Amino acid sequence: MAESEIDAIRKLLTSKPRPVGWAERRARLDEVGSTWPVATDIRCESVDCDGVAGEWSMAPGSDASKVLLFFHGGGYCSGSILSHRRMVTEAGRAMGVRTLAIDYRRAPEHPFPAQHEDALTAWRFLRRQGIAAGHIVVGGDSAGGNLSLSLINRLRAAREQLAACAWLVSPWTDLTMSGATLATKDAVDPLIHKAYLEELADAYAPVPLDRRDPLISPLFADLRGFPPMLIQVGSDETLMSDATRLAEAAGIADVAVRLEIWPHMIHAWPVWNAALEDGRLALAGASEFVREWLG
Amino acid sequence: MAESEIDAIRKLLTSKPRPVGWAERRARLDEVGSTWPVATDIRCESVDCDGVAGEWSMAPGSDASKVLLFFHGGGYCSGSILSHRRMVTEAGRAMGVRTLAIDYRRAPEHPFPAQHEDALTAWRFLRRQGIAAGHIVVGGDSAGGNLSLSLINRLRAAREQLAACAWLVSPWTDLTMSGATLATKDAVDPLIHKAYLEELADAYAPVPLDRRDPLISPLFADLRGFPPMLIQVGSDETLMSDATRLAEAAGIADVAVRLEIWPHMIHAWPVWNAALEDGRLALAGASEFVREWLG
Repeated sequence: MAESEIDAIRKLLTSKPRPVGWAERRARLDEVGSTWPVATDIRCESVDCDGVAGEWSMAPGSDASKVLLFFHGGGYCSGSILSHRRMVTEAGRAMGVRTLAIDYRRAPEHPFPAQHEDALTAWRFLRRQGIAAGHIVVGGDSAGGNLSLSLINRLRAAREQLAACAWLVSPWTDLTMSGATLATKDAVDPLIHKAYLEELADAYAPVPLDRRDPLISPLFADLRGFPPMLIQVGSDETLMSDATRLAEAAGIADVAVRLEIWPHMIHAWPVWNAALEDGRLALAGASEFVREWLG
Repeated sequence: MAESEIDAIRKLLTSKPRPVGWAERRARLDEVGSTWPVATDIRCESVDCDGVAGEWSMAPGSDASKVLLFFHGGGYCSGSILSHRRMVTEAGRAMGVRTLAIDYRRAPEHPFPAQHEDALTAWRFLRRQGIAAGHIVVGGDSAGGNLSLSLINRLRAAREQLAACAWLVSPWTDLTMSGATLATKDAVDPLIHKAYLEELADAYAPVPLDRRDPLISPLFADLRGFPPMLIQVGSDETLMSDATRLAEAAGIADVAVRLEIWPHMIHAWPVWNAALEDGRLALAGASEFVREWLG
């Protein structure tokens, strides 16, 4: 059952030739990501977060005083509020919280650290709405997981309060691409391959930036004092080692960690939750974790 | 709060000089492990599992048709039903199942594979009691985690039905001792140090046995087809890398994995659940996982 659903998602993702060029990639991710629209009972509302575009969402019965601050994936170059709307809004429903999705600036037009600046702006905007730091879960998939970790790193450096916990789906944590599964899972991952990641990393952190910089590759950051983190990754992902090594690094730094590896799931599979039971179950598992740590 | 509790456990464990000699180690582990006796509402009953000594336990309201088959830790050389009685019985209560704890033969008197033979005997005894494989969770701490994995490996090789899931606390998965945290966590782990592990491994798998044998070091086993596994480990453990590397190996083999890293917890901390909230919470987390997978 779950496997035939994931096969259908694989077909959807490979039904057209792989796009070339940033505009084409963005259009394609928006297209496949919005195959299933947002549920009709979700209220969405655009918001200007001090110059950074965002979108609130609320499911019936959610607690407006608690917020999932969400950063979409797309390798820092594509992805949008549109492409990830179904994922964010259903995550908010599962967690019983309001969500704030952020349209941070994208590379290559805006390389590092523009994304960090936008994430900080959104965080501070959210805090100024009166939302307690302990009522915020920061999360994202892929590059959005990277950005979530970098935001926490920046907040710690600024001695600001941190989020209650972090939710990281298929996070891209190592832009030096040293993970073993980049090779060993290459044949089964329909989306993420090393050459593509190299192109994204060149756009986001061009020379002379050092990809080993802990703010660019949070796998190499000192994670001491980070809030509890849930890391979810599929077993059919070239980025699986980015997740498992992050779990170990966080554990070494005495961070509370829960790592879930989902058999046969692909990169950022909760995006497809409308048609994928394991996507809905992953959101349910995330909800369980988040409810444990949100104040 | 949790940290002062764990400090008290650390004091208990280091209150006497570290014992030397197998008899002294066994007596010491039985002594500290039974500091808190079994709760008064638990029914325990000795059982002869076709020549292997065991003990049933039942908490009020548990489902007798579902069983936690438990293998205690102690490096294959010490540990017993007595030392782990509080951990097993409270795990059974949390999971809502009956438990069967096994007094498998210990090294050095009985080296590998005596423990595997006893585990298989106990498994087949349990099955012949009419317990469905899908109603059994196999689990253990430390060497008991190793034995749980090895039992599953043996069952797969014999083409027998497997347990519904596995529960591994601080598992010892690599008897070649190649994990990075053996060095990096040496100063904070009050119990497990490389020289001690070498002594245990020499007793359990003496030359000419090869410690890289997947039946001796399940980290090197082909884990394909293994049931879902929950791995719980403390961040103050030299064996943390044994847990995180097992998670990655299982994920690579498409096994459903949940890895939990518990800050400041020490080796096999759920043994001390009577006086340690994080021990009780770990059992609650294990219960959540087991209930999801038990038929």
